[in-house]
Amino acid sequence: MTDGIPGRGQYTEEARKLRLDWLRERTGTALASLDGSRLDARALTGNVENFAGSVEVPVGLAGPLLFTGDAARGSVVAPLATTEGALIASASRGARALTAAGGVTTKVLSQRMSRAPAFEFADIATAVRFTEWLRAHRPDLDEQVRLVSRHARLVDVDPYQIGRYLHVRFVFETADAAGQNMTTAATWQICRWVTDTLAGEDRLRPAWMMLDGNLSSDKKVSVASMLAGRGTRVTAECRIPADVVESVLKSTPAAVAKGNATLAIGNQQAGMVGSALNAVNIVAGLFVATGQDIACVHESGVSILSMEVDGADLIATILLPSLVIGTVGGGTSLPDQRDWLTALGCAGTGGSARFAEIVAGFALALDVSTTAALVSGQFADAHQRLGRAQRADRR
Amino acid sequence: MTDGIPGRGQYTEEARKLRLDWLRERTGTALASLDGSRLDARALTGNVENFAGSVEVPVGLAGPLLFTGDAARGSVVAPLATTEGALIASASRGARALTAAGGVTTKVLSQRMSRAPAFEFADIATAVRFTEWLRAHRPDLDEQVRLVSRHARLVDVDPYQIGRYLHVRFVFETADAAGQNMTTAATWQICRWVTDTLAGEDRLRPAWMMLDGNLSSDKKVSVASMLAGRGTRVTAECRIPADVVESVLKSTPAAVAKGNATLAIGNQQAGMVGSALNAVNIVAGLFVATGQDIACVHESGVSILSMEVDGADLIATILLPSLVIGTVGGGTSLPDQRDWLTALGCAGTGGSARFAEIVAGFALALDVSTTAALVSGQFADAHQRLGRAQRADRR
Amino acid sequence: MTDGIPGRGQYTEEARKLRLDWLRERTGTALASLDGSRLDARALTGNVENFAGSVEVPVGLAGPLLFTGDAARGSVVAPLATTEGALIASASRGARALTAAGGVTTKVLSQRMSRAPAFEFADIATAVRFTEWLRAHRPDLDEQVRLVSRHARLVDVDPYQIGRYLHVRFVFETADAAGQNMTTAATWQICRWVTDTLAGEDRLRPAWMMLDGNLSSDKKVSVASMLAGRGTRVTAECRIPADVVESVLKSTPAAVAKGNATLAIGNQQAGMVGSALNAVNIVAGLFVATGQDIACVHESGVSILSMEVDGADLIATILLPSLVIGTVGGGTSLPDQRDWLTALGCAGTGGSARFAEIVAGFALALDVSTTAALVSGQFADAHQRLGRAQRADRR
Amino acid sequence: MTDGIPGRGQYTEEARKLRLDWLRERTGTALASLDGSRLDARALTGNVENFAGSVEVPVGLAGPLLFTGDAARGSVVAPLATTEGALIASASRGARALTAAGGVTTKVLSQRMSRAPAFEFADIATAVRFTEWLRAHRPDLDEQVRLVSRHARLVDVDPYQIGRYLHVRFVFETADAAGQNMTTAATWQICRWVTDTLAGEDRLRPAWMMLDGNLSSDKKVSVASMLAGRGTRVTAECRIPADVVESVLKSTPAAVAKGNATLAIGNQQAGMVGSALNAVNIVAGLFVATGQDIACVHESGVSILSMEVDGADLIATILLPSLVIGTVGGGTSLPDQRDWLTALGCAGTGGSARFAEIVAGFALALDVSTTAALVSGQFADAHQRLGRAQRADRR
Repeated sequence: MTDGIPGRGQYTEEARKLRLDWLRERTGTALASLDGSRLDARALTGNVENFAGSVEVPVGLAGPLLFTGDAARGSVVAPLATTEGALIASASRGARALTAAGGVTTKVLSQRMSRAPAFEFADIATAVRFTEWLRAHRPDLDEQVRLVSRHARLVDVDPYQIGRYLHVRFVFETADAAGQNMTTAATWQICRWVTDTLAGEDRLRPAWMMLDGNLSSDKKVSVASMLAGRGTRVTAECRIPADVVESVLKSTPAAVAKGNATLAIGNQQAGMVGSALNAVNIVAGLFVATGQDIACVHESGVSILSMEVDGADLIATILLPSLVIGTVGGGTSLPDQRDWLTALGCAGTGGSARFAEIVAGFALALDVSTTAALVSGQFADAHQRLGRAQRADRR
Repeated sequence: MTDGIPGRGQYTEEARKLRLDWLRERTGTALASLDGSRLDARALTGNVENFAGSVEVPVGLAGPLLFTGDAARGSVVAPLATTEGALIASASRGARALTAAGGVTTKVLSQRMSRAPAFEFADIATAVRFTEWLRAHRPDLDEQVRLVSRHARLVDVDPYQIGRYLHVRFVFETADAAGQNMTTAATWQICRWVTDTLAGEDRLRPAWMMLDGNLSSDKKVSVASMLAGRGTRVTAECRIPADVVESVLKSTPAAVAKGNATLAIGNQQAGMVGSALNAVNIVAGLFVATGQDIACVHESGVSILSMEVDGADLIATILLPSLVIGTVGGGTSLPDQRDWLTALGCAGTGGSARFAEIVAGFALALDVSTTAALVSGQFADAHQRLGRAQRADRR
Repeated sequence: MTDGIPGRGQYTEEARKLRLDWLRERTGTALASLDGSRLDARALTGNVENFAGSVEVPVGLAGPLLFTGDAARGSVVAPLATTEGALIASASRGARALTAAGGVTTKVLSQRMSRAPAFEFADIATAVRFTEWLRAHRPDLDEQVRLVSRHARLVDVDPYQIGRYLHVRFVFETADAAGQNMTTAATWQICRWVTDTLAGEDRLRPAWMMLDGNLSSDKKVSVASMLAGRGTRVTAECRIPADVVESVLKSTPAAVAKGNATLAIGNQQAGMVGSALNAVNIVAGLFVATGQDIACVHESGVSILSMEVDGADLIATILLPSLVIGTVGGGTSLPDQRDWLTALGCAGTGGSARFAEIVAGFALALDVSTTAALVSGQFADAHQRLGRAQRADRR
Repeated sequence: MTDGIPGRGQYTEEARKLRLDWLRERTGTALASLDGSRLDARALTGNVENFAGSVEVPVGLAGPLLFTGDAARGSVVAPLATTEGALIASASRGARALTAAGGVTTKVLSQRMSRAPAFEFADIATAVRFTEWLRAHRPDLDEQVRLVSRHARLVDVDPYQIGRYLHVRFVFETADAAGQNMTTAATWQICRWVTDTLAGEDRLRPAWMMLDGNLSSDKKVSVASMLAGRGTRVTAECRIPADVVESVLKSTPAAVAKGNATLAIGNQQAGMVGSALNAVNIVAGLFVATGQDIACVHESGVSILSMEVDGADLIATILLPSLVIGTVGGGTSLPDQRDWLTALGCAGTGGSARFAEIVAGFALALDVSTTAALVSGQFADAHQRLGRAQRADRR
């Protein structure tokens, strides 16, 4: 096709320029800014096809925030890639409050990734027999997984039967990788082994299958992911004395907790998944800065937020049940991304839990600050001042 | 605080370097890649505080895809910012199928943005009276909106009472801006006017209020947004002849439709919001490339996908009910982002509807391709080949 | 078919006996209890086909509960049809607390019923044109409704387009009837009128339709019903002084509110629709006693419950957003049902709002009592004592 | 209290009359129908407090329906307690179709009941340690359960931590009982044992607890129940040849399947839990007739429905994931209820699985019939004819 994008399959700067020029001609635009990219096209195999340029997203520093967590400890500054004015200011204000309160406690509760193929059988009874067969052959499944991955470890096999269909959630631990690819490969290996092994067994074999029937909720928001966990499940909590709430957040524990309770009613009325306020701002900012799969902001942005007055203190808690993150693989080895990950102390093996806790800690800091702003009227003013710059009515 | 991030409130390259050096010293890391940023710190007021560097995300070209839509017409190439191998290849394959089928038809159905303050009253009866008063004073509300924004137009005032609390969704049309800030400003203006006007009216006045009680679902995924619309509601559809399904997608209309029906069951079992497959990959790729608020990938990634066999054809349909996008304001004026938006023909006033339709068209292309891949076993192979590069077991 | 149920289409005692004897022979069982039914078979046209006997459900009295509502005022005793021990005791305890607090305030917020046909069109553009045409012909729709019902009033026409499909929620007010049948008839009349009127209009006419595409959520639980309302939307609230919480509920305002906040987190984690505790016990008990459509317990059982400490008081609030009820039609004219409805002061025209408020008030009473029981350990003890009678391990 | 309901704690006919007379005087109504009750007040301990009368609900026969299930086999007639005209006619029509197709295949997939207490700890770390301790003491938990119940068997202990709170789902198999009471007693026993055992262990002990934090979703509709199962999880399926669809249902496999696909989109747009049509009509009708806990209609009415064309056949499938039922205990020993249960062949031990399959089979029959009616226009006509009797505009 003459209209096709040129340089197909080529990972070179030359091919990139070719594509960019082709796009310029096609659209009649100068695209002057896109000439310069500091990325090395040759290093992008596995990350992007038809590479034509890049996009530079500004990164600001939020914090510092004191962590007294499990994997995250000490004072941390978070690089947030964003174009939303007021976000970093608000996160930093929250961080000041949590730090003054003695720091935020964080903890990774689990890490898992899943694929959920769907099988169709001749009838209900065959699906039931297959389920039993699968359960009995768990060691074989483990062995198949080992054939394709050193890191993936099969930790759960959950069958969900609906009529003659069977959806099976294969759940893996994938160490410091987000793990979608290794999970896909391992599950596919299992599927092929199952199909081959049962080819002649009419009383057991699937009549049809697809690699995923959406019960994995890959790249989707679902209650299943909030319950079963998908990616890293992490929680953060902080007890903030009244004087800190007053001096830093310009509010009171009772007012902030009342705001949170009011949000909870709004959530329920709206049919929200979880009960977030704006934790996803932190998720997105850290995901982009550190080379996470940005599309996973969709599923990773879910959270459950709660606040409680205890004596003179405000206790604020957050759960991020499905943070799809990794500190190896994907975009984490790109130069800027790697640097920001390094600045966080999370690069490479072992970094994933710390990264998750940092996300949770800053998410809590932001949501505490935003709740206080919403109940005290500071929210609109801050966005007026920081989000619109000199230009009125900007967006 | 000596530990604070330096250069507070300064939007200069000098301040940026100061912060970067401070971070280097603090973390004991070289952060070599972060020296070079092509962004002008002075232009970032309104986008980011504590600017310290940037992150360069690779952009690949997907398509071309033929549009026969309302605002999007002709052949379009989509710049997708991503680090997920195989994504662009799959979207391009889907685009080939839809193009060979005669193009994808797209249509923006509505555009709206909302804020939903929560008011507490002395009792249920006062909340009821206030609701009636608010309804009777609609012209005054319109006038208050005009005081703070030329572009926001109040189109709906939806009250939701729960006991003595009243959550009110103020719904606006905001032209080509995503509109969160102008919606916030307009609603805040209304709230202050209401409070001032009713200050002495004990039978009507709110006892307490907060600017948003989460019924707006700002930065959250909720069924309310899927129903009422938040941002741009856009749909896309394509009738694909069997021979195209076979030659391009290596499947059949019946097999792809069966795959979609199987996914629908998985969705329901999982308690998913909507029935997406992986449309959010397109949302994220285009959002990052064009300077949208990346955190809005969370709420914008929801979609409803369906497929049907009609005669010898496959008809594929998608709805994106809550695409929070703008072509003015926010990050859209940053250099790379503006260029990519220009390449799409969507920069500036009037571009928003076209942009929404392009997102929907490519989302449909990707989901058609992915469904075909899932039922035919190509999915795992493609991710093995394109997503893992030379390194085995990469993520 | 010789195996068929005898007496088809006959509403007589003779036919009933015939069926019962047939069933006895078929199943080889005595079914001795079923001989006696006080129901008059001739009066059951419109209520049940193949009438063969009845089932007697015990009714206990809960309360009294003092109402200071809009339609419900004064002391009310509620007849609850139930077989769950401890339920009436717990509801009565809650009623004592709310009565001692000065009574429960209740208010019906809206009443509406809907049908939502789905139309398929040739393409997206035709669906859009149809939507505009429908909007322009609203007076004609009103006229069609008047042709089939004196009571139904069309109050809203909400279109939801997804590709070439259009789901339209036709929303009606139906006075004291639950209104599903009149809504169905009116919507069907509209559908036929639309189809006839547009028969020759290729640029407008539906290619296919079905009477309901499930957006009405008839007999289903959905967030749409919680938001838009389906049936009667009613709220109740009570401010309970600390001494009443202590003396009647054996707890404290702080403990009960903490329990409610903990439940709210559980709800969110579970992906619950709304945030009920066990309000549905009241819904079911009153529905069965008064001849409501018992299947509607499914959709009517949704509620949003919240509690708050204010000074020394506990304020408890409930919203029942989708109570599908009527005080005319359906089973409300059966003898026992009519009597219980009369005892509530809700029989016939004008009774529906009072009935809704009574449901809400007792639901709040029960949930307050249950929350107190859950936090203080009384719950298990009460069910042990009242729910299991003399027999250990009964269910 | 002089205004109190008389005869407190007395289970006698005399006390019943006393209450009824008191109610008559109080409300100034005759309540003539309520004199006669065939129920023996003395047998109602454990079922109802303040017994004052009863309500007689008409029962009609639906079917026969041929079962080729696991526990349900042969031709079955279902007694449905209902006041909704057309319901039994429609269910019977569906039953004719499924029977002509060779019968409906049914299968119980699991049976379980749960309680989910919430524990608060001093901090996140203590909650983590407690979780590990609980896991290590599983044999002790089993022992505690045995102390209070012979039938309950603890099959799962699922911890969900959110900050310093821990919700634990204790999951039991409860044989033929619905099991809420034995589950409550067993969980309460565990809670007390845990509290006693850890009383002196500051590094492990809960600071606060409540018996259920709503993660059990007892008497609520949640995705958690749809996923994890609550009560009996049962599925039904039938392959219906085209000629049967045409002759009995007056439609075609393609039209019915298209109707189902259209409903699925409506479900997703509405934010429905599951994808039911009106299966709950069967659930309610059988629950009331057989003495199930009627309030459980709320949670038990959830279902997932799907239909598919396969060759010339229509394959229809349903899943009822959370049918809270029992054939011993509760209202199942009341005279009419016991008789209807006996007529179904489900009374007593071993009957629960058969009962669940009968519900699923008839639910599928009804939903197949209703879908066909909705796409062919028969729905409105049937409700006009059978649901409104001689009176026009009845409800």
